[in-house]
Amino acid sequence: MDEAWRGDVVVVGAGLIGTSIGLAARAAGVAVRLLDRDPRRAALAASLGAGEAMDVRDDRPGTLVVVAVAPGHTGSAVVDVLRRGLGATVTHVCSVQSVPQAEVEAAGVPLNRFVGGHPIAGRELSGPVHASADLFRDRPWVLTPTSATDADAVESVARFVRTCGARPVTLTASVHDELFARLSHAPQLVASALASAVADLAPAEAELAGSGFRDTTRLADSDAELWAQIVAANAGPVARALRAVTDRLTATEQALDSGDGARITAVVGDLVRSGRAGRALLPGKHGRRPTALAVVEVVIPDEPGALARLLSAVADQRVNLEDLRVDHAPGQPLGVASLVVAPERQERLAGALRAAGWAVSAGLSEAL
Amino acid sequence: MDEAWRGDVVVVGAGLIGTSIGLAARAAGVAVRLLDRDPRRAALAASLGAGEAMDVRDDRPGTLVVVAVAPGHTGSAVVDVLRRGLGATVTHVCSVQSVPQAEVEAAGVPLNRFVGGHPIAGRELSGPVHASADLFRDRPWVLTPTSATDADAVESVARFVRTCGARPVTLTASVHDELFARLSHAPQLVASALASAVADLAPAEAELAGSGFRDTTRLADSDAELWAQIVAANAGPVARALRAVTDRLTATEQALDSGDGARITAVVGDLVRSGRAGRALLPGKHGRRPTALAVVEVVIPDEPGALARLLSAVADQRVNLEDLRVDHAPGQPLGVASLVVAPERQERLAGALRAAGWAVSAGLSEAL
Repeated sequence: MDEAWRGDVVVVGAGLIGTSIGLAARAAGVAVRLLDRDPRRAALAASLGAGEAMDVRDDRPGTLVVVAVAPGHTGSAVVDVLRRGLGATVTHVCSVQSVPQAEVEAAGVPLNRFVGGHPIAGRELSGPVHASADLFRDRPWVLTPTSATDADAVESVARFVRTCGARPVTLTASVHDELFARLSHAPQLVASALASAVADLAPAEAELAGSGFRDTTRLADSDAELWAQIVAANAGPVARALRAVTDRLTATEQALDSGDGARITAVVGDLVRSGRAGRALLPGKHGRRPTALAVVEVVIPDEPGALARLLSAVADQRVNLEDLRVDHAPGQPLGVASLVVAPERQERLAGALRAAGWAVSAGLSEAL
Repeated sequence: MDEAWRGDVVVVGAGLIGTSIGLAARAAGVAVRLLDRDPRRAALAASLGAGEAMDVRDDRPGTLVVVAVAPGHTGSAVVDVLRRGLGATVTHVCSVQSVPQAEVEAAGVPLNRFVGGHPIAGRELSGPVHASADLFRDRPWVLTPTSATDADAVESVARFVRTCGARPVTLTASVHDELFARLSHAPQLVASALASAVADLAPAEAELAGSGFRDTTRLADSDAELWAQIVAANAGPVARALRAVTDRLTATEQALDSGDGARITAVVGDLVRSGRAGRALLPGKHGRRPTALAVVEVVIPDEPGALARLLSAVADQRVNLEDLRVDHAPGQPLGVASLVVAPERQERLAGALRAAGWAVSAGLSEAL
């Protein structure tokens, strides 16, 4: 399982993802050849250290071929690579899986060494110059073997994925597409619809947008042609995922139309609480699952040794600190220490510190 | 206009916003008294340096009273402050304006010194310990005088707003509420609906969410009770703003249902392009409007003096650099210089640098 991947890699398509794969593989000492129909792009990726730029017609086979082209061209590029015998094993990095898989199946090429793939990583920026060897580090990378794929072909791609720093996750193509319709494709369209709905504002009005609007619509900066290809290749699941969102919003609109304050409060409260439940499923900031931890926030007086005194007071209570964050906001004369502890310790620690004269936040919040 | 604000301030409600106002005012040398029905919260804000904690019944009038309580209590709290004669001028910081204004008008109190207000700043975190004197710096702060408000009362609040580092913007209450239904309240509900639609996922499935989903749903972490109050107080405009979003999504669902690839590609492409147009209206990262600038990206070889040689080559072309960013991604052996120039200089500079042997990005992107 954990054996290092051995062999050489041919990357077809030197965009952001292809170049990042080249950089990650080179960093692990793997030989990489880069093919792109635009020789300048392959040369640029090579100059960044992502491998050796080759003519796009170069036919020397590699241990693994990674097809990293646009979604609409993925299936035909994989078929081309399989027909040319370019690699012992062939994978791709497309955001959708069922349509390229069906295209490969329909072409009558052997499927036993083909494994679809989708690294869950990316940037709003595209092109080789924004590539990074660290793009995949600790990120999931979905693999979708067909029913005809050899087990050792899947294992070979999984080992390569680990070599790039990522975590392989095996799903069927259809489960992948249903899931990413909900986690990626529908959110993309919703972000675009939100941003589109303010496109008629005067610039002075749009300037009043806060950081919440900016975050919620960040995805709307994405490329129109790329997303048209992705959504067209996953139409059914995306339509279902969108409906799950619009059904909730339509129910909210109806409550708002009723003019019944109690009903509005109930419906909006339920929606926001349900959204918090969905958010709580997301892994924590550093890719860890959210753990049930509590925070006690304490003001640190602006005097020498104050933090040390605080930690000593915490130790006196025999409370184990899971984490400690000290937030010294600019323009704020004092710092705030966030003491992260097990939930069952929270109340007792807050009470003890308050009794000892510390300024402790009354509203105890739950840690992410 | 630019005269400094003089006087003392009473802040009613020592939460995130009230405490931040206290910190900003104190930083400008303004005397601040803090009133909160929870004396521990007022004491905590005072210990952070936000002013002097007073008994909530303290009746000494101030030059300005800022009511910073929950949206559902804003109108009644302003009426209470006006009846008690607590301040020469009274404002609030509520996310909605028409309902509190109507409540104040209905109470039969004098309106000539009352000005509604809404600083466009906040954090997902709440409570005084997360307050910051810099929260309002360079942010807009909307003021909504009534038709009966004295001009010099508006001017006094505007001067105080500038003292806190913010930019006052005057709107009517109804224009404010229509605008923020679109820029803030509807996006909040959309983020909650998106997050709610994945609340049934297994944890292992939710772990596959990428940074896009996380950003798009960040607002969904917000407080359910707070948002129920805000939305209930702005029901009509929020319903209209939501419909502008759901209409676009429903049209997309219909295209997806048609199974017509060309129609799907056209509808999705139009939606994403329209969303990009909306995003383009937003001010740039540092609060500036997006300017029409172009970027030429050049790989910097990993050798001494390479960046200096590049800048000298740019100077040789007599091209004015508007901005220069050097991105040395971890794990990437070489750096990339983004040369930000006027759009009409982009092509010539790229060509000249390429001719001189530099690795220049073929895909020239537009700067934010």
